[in-house]
Amino acid sequence: MANLGPGRPRLEQRRRRGTTPRAEILDAAAELFTTKGYANTSTRAVADAVGIRQASLYHHFAAKDDILDALLAETVAGPVELAHKLHAEPEDATTKLYALALFDVRQLRGARWNLGALYLLPELRTERFVAFRRRRDELREHYERLAAESCTAAGQSDDARILPFRLVETVIAIRSDEGSAGEEAERVIPDAIVRIVGHHGAMDTVRAAADAVLDRLSD
Amino acid sequence: MANLGPGRPRLEQRRRRGTTPRAEILDAAAELFTTKGYANTSTRAVADAVGIRQASLYHHFAAKDDILDALLAETVAGPVELAHKLHAEPEDATTKLYALALFDVRQLRGARWNLGALYLLPELRTERFVAFRRRRDELREHYERLAAESCTAAGQSDDARILPFRLVETVIAIRSDEGSAGEEAERVIPDAIVRIVGHHGAMDTVRAAADAVLDRLSD
Repeated sequence: MANLGPGRPRLEQRRRRGTTPRAEILDAAAELFTTKGYANTSTRAVADAVGIRQASLYHHFAAKDDILDALLAETVAGPVELAHKLHAEPEDATTKLYALALFDVRQLRGARWNLGALYLLPELRTERFVAFRRRRDELREHYERLAAESCTAAGQSDDARILPFRLVETVIAIRSDEGSAGEEAERVIPDAIVRIVGHHGAMDTVRAAADAVLDRLSD
Repeated sequence: MANLGPGRPRLEQRRRRGTTPRAEILDAAAELFTTKGYANTSTRAVADAVGIRQASLYHHFAAKDDILDALLAETVAGPVELAHKLHAEPEDATTKLYALALFDVRQLRGARWNLGALYLLPELRTERFVAFRRRRDELREHYERLAAESCTAAGQSDDARILPFRLVETVIAIRSDEGSAGEEAERVIPDAIVRIVGHHGAMDTVRAAADAVLDRLSD
């Protein structure tokens, strides 16, 4: 152990930067869950990575699945909030769909850890994660409603309504395979989505309208 | 233990149907890896699920990662083989892309276990799985080449060439979230892919041509 100098030795030598102990725990857990695996990570390993004692960690999270639940909730909170706000806006469904997809691709590619990779864990199918699954289903339904409305407006069948949500989440697989998703994903994925829902007009017009509504709502 | 009747007791009471012990081990491991998790499954648990002794399992696979590697290899073998065969065929790139996507969606949705859910495991980024990653990259490159050729033929930028492979693999996320992927995925996903690469012609023509080449190659 390093020489801690005179006085009472620090029992907790924090190792991570973060604004609060809770944020430090979440960041350390996110790194370990995504790089070592959820099942392979103990709460002890998370506490060690933060530089706190396990007892201190339990002050914030009673169990490992509570940490996972908090991390997963963060991945859908932003897009769900945006989808709610968009609902009250006057733009057409295709513009809203583009805006939601753009916002979501941005946060999925920009997040410090690729937490969406945890969506496929068998653990998530248990009762413990029913609240998270409902929240993500809610987001999925926002995408499907906007996509179905866009298809109808374009005069085509709405069979493809399930795909925009799925296409956005391919950012997770791209990050997992390639280490990161390039910035072009923020244009290529939303563009592909509006093509799938049958939009044949100029893409620049949709992009500009989506940017405008996102700017307005972020004020 | 059940009464095994007269004579020498059977030390191995097989519990799974399968044509060979190796196939039984792979099927049991696939179930456990996808329902309990890879890290949560021991080779002992796999042997128990098959109804053989651990020593018998080691006769076929030296370690747990060898079982995973064999299972993963199966998920890409079929589409890689098809992509090679398509390369020598006279059809245009869009028809070949449709055929490859249709074949791949079919096998991803029809496979007994949703093994693609294991693609996001951190364990797969290790040296042990470099051969599998290369094989999957090879499949991805076939998709990207066909997609780029289709974009060029349609007179548009080939930025979207990365998306068809990703869209096909969304079958994995759909199965994970919903338990299964509906049969409509076999039409909706390939249709969306050819729209993304800029095809504006009749979809029925592409579908019929893709079906014809798949029929011919499956003989």
